[in-house]
Amino acid sequence: MNVSKRSITVKGTIIGGGIPLICTPLIGMDQDQILSELQNTLPKAPDLIEWRADFFSHLPNTDAVLDTLAGIQETIAQTPLLFTVRSQREGGEPIALSESDKLMLFEKVCGSGGIDLIDYELVNEKENIHHLSRVAEEAGVRLILSYHNFESTPVSSDILGKLLEAESRGADIAKVAVMPHSSQDLLTLLQATLTASQQLRIPLITMSMGGLGTLTRLAGWMFGSDVTFAIGKQGSAPGQIPIEELREVMQSIQQWAGGGQT
Amino acid sequence: MNVSKRSITVKGTIIGGGIPLICTPLIGMDQDQILSELQNTLPKAPDLIEWRADFFSHLPNTDAVLDTLAGIQETIAQTPLLFTVRSQREGGEPIALSESDKLMLFEKVCGSGGIDLIDYELVNEKENIHHLSRVAEEAGVRLILSYHNFESTPVSSDILGKLLEAESRGADIAKVAVMPHSSQDLLTLLQATLTASQQLRIPLITMSMGGLGTLTRLAGWMFGSDVTFAIGKQGSAPGQIPIEELREVMQSIQQWAGGGQT
Repeated sequence: MNVSKRSITVKGTIIGGGIPLICTPLIGMDQDQILSELQNTLPKAPDLIEWRADFFSHLPNTDAVLDTLAGIQETIAQTPLLFTVRSQREGGEPIALSESDKLMLFEKVCGSGGIDLIDYELVNEKENIHHLSRVAEEAGVRLILSYHNFESTPVSSDILGKLLEAESRGADIAKVAVMPHSSQDLLTLLQATLTASQQLRIPLITMSMGGLGTLTRLAGWMFGSDVTFAIGKQGSAPGQIPIEELREVMQSIQQWAGGGQT
Repeated sequence: MNVSKRSITVKGTIIGGGIPLICTPLIGMDQDQILSELQNTLPKAPDLIEWRADFFSHLPNTDAVLDTLAGIQETIAQTPLLFTVRSQREGGEPIALSESDKLMLFEKVCGSGGIDLIDYELVNEKENIHHLSRVAEEAGVRLILSYHNFESTPVSSDILGKLLEAESRGADIAKVAVMPHSSQDLLTLLQATLTASQQLRIPLITMSMGGLGTLTRLAGWMFGSDVTFAIGKQGSAPGQIPIEELREVMQSIQQWAGGGQT
């Protein structure tokens, strides 16, 4: 594979080392639901767990968030935890937090020692990104800077631009998720991913969403995407596939791709 | 999918109708081996069967070929049969036939009523291609004009050029098989396929060979390739996957790609 970029290691898990990882989201509304999801998901051995805290109904309550994080940490053992509050304009649930409240929450969450990675959108104010980047670095938390487009797939150079911008703004991992409307859009996303994997020095996560984008969730790793998202108990974005089925197909492709070369 | 081209119907099987077909090769050395392969393969329900007659040790003997064809026809029922004598310079077995002897054999094979499709390489002399095209048409046999490159993957415009040339020389189906050395080569083949599917008025068959090319055998149909080759009992080219496993993965992708779209 054309993976020339640097990998990072989180809790012993290598992201960007050539072996594609599977991340499953937790989307429960309260701590009980979330811990139940987690217990259902962990036996399926995801490589990463994402808490999509924009689904959490007690989100404005920092203590409730930290308490739930503590509960997750008791259960999750060595699996790295990604903390995400997806903004509504990029596909998240409506939340009762201003951007500055959100950043204060993120600061406490980073400082709590309860998370390993945090996601923040590239579309945010530069100073907010810069601030969170410093906060995360001090706390030993890795920053994913992400771009989502639920409407369409931008041209390849624009996708590449988002990934390069993420790196330049201090991301430890750059992420792009876009909506395809044709097979051409899949090739556009995969080509941008491959080019980015040759230019960036950090791991990448890219995908085409929706049913049409399935192929990129299954095989994006061949073009430099280091993590794919799959359903543990319940999905968080269109086109996610149950983890067991995703892993089976990925392993088949890996076996054939590795074994049959002449 | 971006399938705007015309489909053809062979023995009730639609090639190029948007549903990808699976073709399995027969590579036995004699009639017994071939009929045994066929009996082993038919229960796996391939959409097409290819007799790779360059593996047939009695090839120079026209009567032996026609006799074996009759045996195949007794067994094969409604599955369309493709007759291929792959030339050694494009990956076939060494055979004891001059090009003009080969064409005479092809003429008899077409005239026998025992085959539905015949493969011939684009690299051959134009007058030979033209002659076979007329012979096949008169016999009601569909002509596949093919280009193979076991060394490398040409640039996208060259692959497109081969497919366009096949159509312009009278092919009913255009085929290209190339060897990848990088993930970029897979995108090159898929992009050429997608562009060709938008420009040509005939069905296409394309693939990247070898283990690395696996993805194009599984998902080429999303980009306009109408047939993929899989192992029935034994493969005939590097990177072919057993038909049952290929079908399972293709069906998963089809189900997810069709079902999850938002």
